[in-house]
Amino acid sequence: MNEIIKEKTMQAVSVLNELDIDLWITFVRETSAGGDPVLPIIYGRDLTWQSALLISKTGERIAIVGGFEEDTAVRTDAYNTVIPYHQSIQPHLLEVLNRLDPQTIALNYSADDVYSDGLSVGLHQVLLAMLKDTPYANRIISSEKIISALRGRKTPTELLRVKAAIDSTSIIYDKMFNFVKAGMSEIEIAQQMRKFVDEAGLDTAWESDHCPTVNAGAETPAGHVSPTGTQLKPGELLHFDFGVKQDDYCSDIQRVAYLPSDEHPTPSPELDRAFSTIVKAIQNAVKAIKPGVKGKDIDAIARETLAQEGYPEFMHALGHQVGRQAHDGGAIIGPLWDRYGDTPNWPLEVGQIYTIEPSIIDPDLGVIALEEMILVTETGAEFLSQPQTEWIIL
Amino acid sequence: MNEIIKEKTMQAVSVLNELDIDLWITFVRETSAGGDPVLPIIYGRDLTWQSALLISKTGERIAIVGGFEEDTAVRTDAYNTVIPYHQSIQPHLLEVLNRLDPQTIALNYSADDVYSDGLSVGLHQVLLAMLKDTPYANRIISSEKIISALRGRKTPTELLRVKAAIDSTSIIYDKMFNFVKAGMSEIEIAQQMRKFVDEAGLDTAWESDHCPTVNAGAETPAGHVSPTGTQLKPGELLHFDFGVKQDDYCSDIQRVAYLPSDEHPTPSPELDRAFSTIVKAIQNAVKAIKPGVKGKDIDAIARETLAQEGYPEFMHALGHQVGRQAHDGGAIIGPLWDRYGDTPNWPLEVGQIYTIEPSIIDPDLGVIALEEMILVTETGAEFLSQPQTEWIIL
Repeated sequence: MNEIIKEKTMQAVSVLNELDIDLWITFVRETSAGGDPVLPIIYGRDLTWQSALLISKTGERIAIVGGFEEDTAVRTDAYNTVIPYHQSIQPHLLEVLNRLDPQTIALNYSADDVYSDGLSVGLHQVLLAMLKDTPYANRIISSEKIISALRGRKTPTELLRVKAAIDSTSIIYDKMFNFVKAGMSEIEIAQQMRKFVDEAGLDTAWESDHCPTVNAGAETPAGHVSPTGTQLKPGELLHFDFGVKQDDYCSDIQRVAYLPSDEHPTPSPELDRAFSTIVKAIQNAVKAIKPGVKGKDIDAIARETLAQEGYPEFMHALGHQVGRQAHDGGAIIGPLWDRYGDTPNWPLEVGQIYTIEPSIIDPDLGVIALEEMILVTETGAEFLSQPQTEWIIL
Repeated sequence: MNEIIKEKTMQAVSVLNELDIDLWITFVRETSAGGDPVLPIIYGRDLTWQSALLISKTGERIAIVGGFEEDTAVRTDAYNTVIPYHQSIQPHLLEVLNRLDPQTIALNYSADDVYSDGLSVGLHQVLLAMLKDTPYANRIISSEKIISALRGRKTPTELLRVKAAIDSTSIIYDKMFNFVKAGMSEIEIAQQMRKFVDEAGLDTAWESDHCPTVNAGAETPAGHVSPTGTQLKPGELLHFDFGVKQDDYCSDIQRVAYLPSDEHPTPSPELDRAFSTIVKAIQNAVKAIKPGVKGKDIDAIARETLAQEGYPEFMHALGHQVGRQAHDGGAIIGPLWDRYGDTPNWPLEVGQIYTIEPSIIDPDLGVIALEEMILVTETGAEFLSQPQTEWIIL
């Protein structure tokens, strides 16, 4: 854990240089209430009183924390200066600002990226009141570019952890394909999958009551909902959306399988055509990925592949980043819809990990969707998951 | 869980009437990233896309959520209207506002209370942009009075849960006092205590690496730090700060014990005098508690009790609220120090649960501190924990 925090605070210094931002302040309090989502990668512990983590372009990493937490801050081994206080953080913060005299100060707010938006409105007011009558209040900018770079660009340690989570996911999927039988309900299937997660000593990548989601056949509601009592019948498909969290890093992979019936030992031509279209949409999108392209343009490629085959538009983004969370924020491979803000316009960067997950939801067939995970490389993209290109026959 | 969410959303309607606030909006997105700390008591699930939970003085409880989460919202059974959307929340939100035409709209921001400060700066900008060119942007107020009432005033179900957590804590303390022997290190002692927590199927009330904190004798640093290798020696005291989380509700209790030596089978007069002063400070403070008094005035009573006996001032608040978190925000029984904001001025209310935890940290004796839990009643206060008034002899 501390290893990644050290890597990330050092990486932050180089990102500040690249972006030419003098100082980045993460200002928090009582983080056990929820806290700033960047804290786990730059501090790794809770902070109780008003606390400031300052990282400067010149390489200083300063933690101003409540007196009782000085020792804990020192033990992170990621901050070269730890300043404890007892009554008010203000004089200590101003002293550091006066010494560094930063021309740009990044704070954690972002209209578009939830992981860069950890500063709350009330705490922001508190901070601005402290900076009143100083020049610093007018030098504030958003830290979204810093945080999206930090979260997105995986260090070698982080990439190994995501790969390990993907490997575990693949093993659990294989166990499930052996386990599933006709007549099992979505709930039974999901329970067994969570049991495999438990037995492996892992957590699910998101809330366990809809991780996995399981869609048996065409009768069940799709999306972010819990499995139902619907039973799997021969001649139907079975769709999963599932991931694990392993050593703080996540996977997020969708698979679709087919349960043969006597009448239909293989998927119908309608199912087959939908499946092939999904596979093709993924291949077309991944081929076009390279550093610097915008997510909206990759998203459009997959959307167009479906449209050409006459399928309706899927009502979600083609892909999102994965890291400490299954949905890890930052740039998104999605359309320019209100709910994604500006993030589909952000360029893809080397070291980012995305899902690619087009879907066809057909009222007569069910959920035909796959989700692969890819890494953006210097020259393009590589699959981190072993892409599914054929039906899994149960 | 759903039971408490229903109780709390109903309670919110009566709080809005009491405070004469027309509408309360909790506006969130991607809450798996951290989210608004009020969400667990009014929704109990994560929300992915921009979502608005609206509770009106007239009793309407409306959830506007992403289309994929409609079903989940309906299943909470706490919102009488669920409005799903796919591309933008704005038209749906404006439609509700236009229909209700609220004169006051409370949002979750607070300079003083972290649990009422769940709205982030960037998301606030998004919301204000949606309300641009409407009259509503000028009708916004803080929801801190709503949320502090909701979190603080425990429903019968909540009170039962806190009492159950306190009972479990008491049982684990008794096991520990039987377990502890001379020569054990703080780390060993803490490990065993966490083992008892595990065996009871519970969680610690705060981060387990400093729950419990264990202070053996006078050599070890006090406060929010992890146990060390310091060994307990005969003739020394042993101090614990510990709590459990049981069914989502917490306890937080400090105890101090004494390990006899041949030379000193009972605590020294110095230890005894400090212990008695702590007990007296608690009794004096609790006697003065009644609805309507301010936390700062109760805090001052305990501080004065110590000062009269010549002990230094403790560098923390006398008490904080306990509920879903060990430190549950809202009004505090503390001094008017910067870091507590205005919360020591907030009046105590019936149904709130506070700790009372004066401390004496003496470089020659160690940490002499107790922490009891009390409930504010119509006529005063009652102890929820069985108060420690005599030394526990190990």
